[in-house]
Amino acid sequence: MNKKGPASSGRRAVVLLSGGLDSAVTLYSALAQGYDCSCLIFDYGQRHKKELVFAKKIARAGGCRHQLIKFSLPWKGSSLLDKRSDIGARYQVSGAKKIPLTYVPGRNIIFLSFALSFAEAIRAESIFIGAHQEDYSGYPDCRREFFEAFRQVIAKGTAAGARKKKISILVPLQDKKKAEIIRLGKRLGVPFELTWSCYGGKSAPCNECGSCYYRAKGFREAGMVDPALKSR
Amino acid sequence: MNKKGPASSGRRAVVLLSGGLDSAVTLYSALAQGYDCSCLIFDYGQRHKKELVFAKKIARAGGCRHQLIKFSLPWKGSSLLDKRSDIGARYQVSGAKKIPLTYVPGRNIIFLSFALSFAEAIRAESIFIGAHQEDYSGYPDCRREFFEAFRQVIAKGTAAGARKKKISILVPLQDKKKAEIIRLGKRLGVPFELTWSCYGGKSAPCNECGSCYYRAKGFREAGMVDPALKSR
Repeated sequence: MNKKGPASSGRRAVVLLSGGLDSAVTLYSALAQGYDCSCLIFDYGQRHKKELVFAKKIARAGGCRHQLIKFSLPWKGSSLLDKRSDIGARYQVSGAKKIPLTYVPGRNIIFLSFALSFAEAIRAESIFIGAHQEDYSGYPDCRREFFEAFRQVIAKGTAAGARKKKISILVPLQDKKKAEIIRLGKRLGVPFELTWSCYGGKSAPCNECGSCYYRAKGFREAGMVDPALKSR
Repeated sequence: MNKKGPASSGRRAVVLLSGGLDSAVTLYSALAQGYDCSCLIFDYGQRHKKELVFAKKIARAGGCRHQLIKFSLPWKGSSLLDKRSDIGARYQVSGAKKIPLTYVPGRNIIFLSFALSFAEAIRAESIFIGAHQEDYSGYPDCRREFFEAFRQVIAKGTAAGARKKKISILVPLQDKKKAEIIRLGKRLGVPFELTWSCYGGKSAPCNECGSCYYRAKGFREAGMVDPALKSR
């Protein structure tokens, strides 16, 4: 049972945790709904591996256990995995239709597959993922239709599905803008100073990559100062 | 380009290779269709890790490159991952409706997710998987409806799908019985002596687990002697 949130309802959830702001708000949202949350963290060779330390801190702050899954994709194919390629300027374009260089082929599908396996093993009834459509509209694996399709995979391809025991995929931030997510996080008491958004992987946020850009914009629009700026 | 099969058509495929008989026949089937095949092999903490050596041998015999993906599922939940649990007798029941103890939660979903990422990265147009319904009718992630659902995930959740560039999932053994698979393999020149089916993970096949049982039954029904028995 988790320490934060209301008394646990006994309902278990697996929460995908990246160390970023969105997944932290998603975790606190699940806790506020009374879920007993187990966090799932991925070390997949991302250049911003620093986020893993923050993911663990957030899990602990929420009073949740976590599991770390480690794998690497030897075929690269994304600037998030390949240090030689540029991460910065190219996708600081809001609403761009192009798929960003930082897109990792199949990443959310891989993440959800592991989450599904975990959920079946611990008999969790829900999987929470912090995806949302607004900022990175280019990522096909953040779209509503994708999650809908994945729900069918669960229904058809798992023992839980075969037993008519549903495992839901919940995407509480789906329709929210960054500023709304930040306001929600504030209401839920999310420790923003324990979140890490920068794709750069240096000791301090680069303030140049798309992720830094949208975070700063979100706090500005929410009329708040990013607590991470004060604490670093 | 692969050495076996007809001259490559330039069409690329990712083939899931386990080291077992079914995936070997699937690989040779893809090669016979003129695909330039890249094999994907998984080290996921299976107790019959020995199959990995065989998977690599089969890839080499087919003249194909291979990639190895390594991960572990810390939550276990299957007798295939947990050496303390019994693998044998419980599911030697043909057509059993029960989901076998050897079911690994989400395994084929995880495998296909990685295959999908690989296929996107190398611009392969097809993914081959050696699943079939007959023997292990209890595995929900071997069913036709599951593959159908996963095709939708590809269409909705990948950059390839967003660009209307199709990645197909091909299941050539879907409707075949074990004896038919073995006969097909013989026609295609599959080196059965380089395949490993036993779940036990000992130096010689146990001849007791479900996988050994169905292999022996298949060869018997095909009127053939298993070449692996002669070579060991």
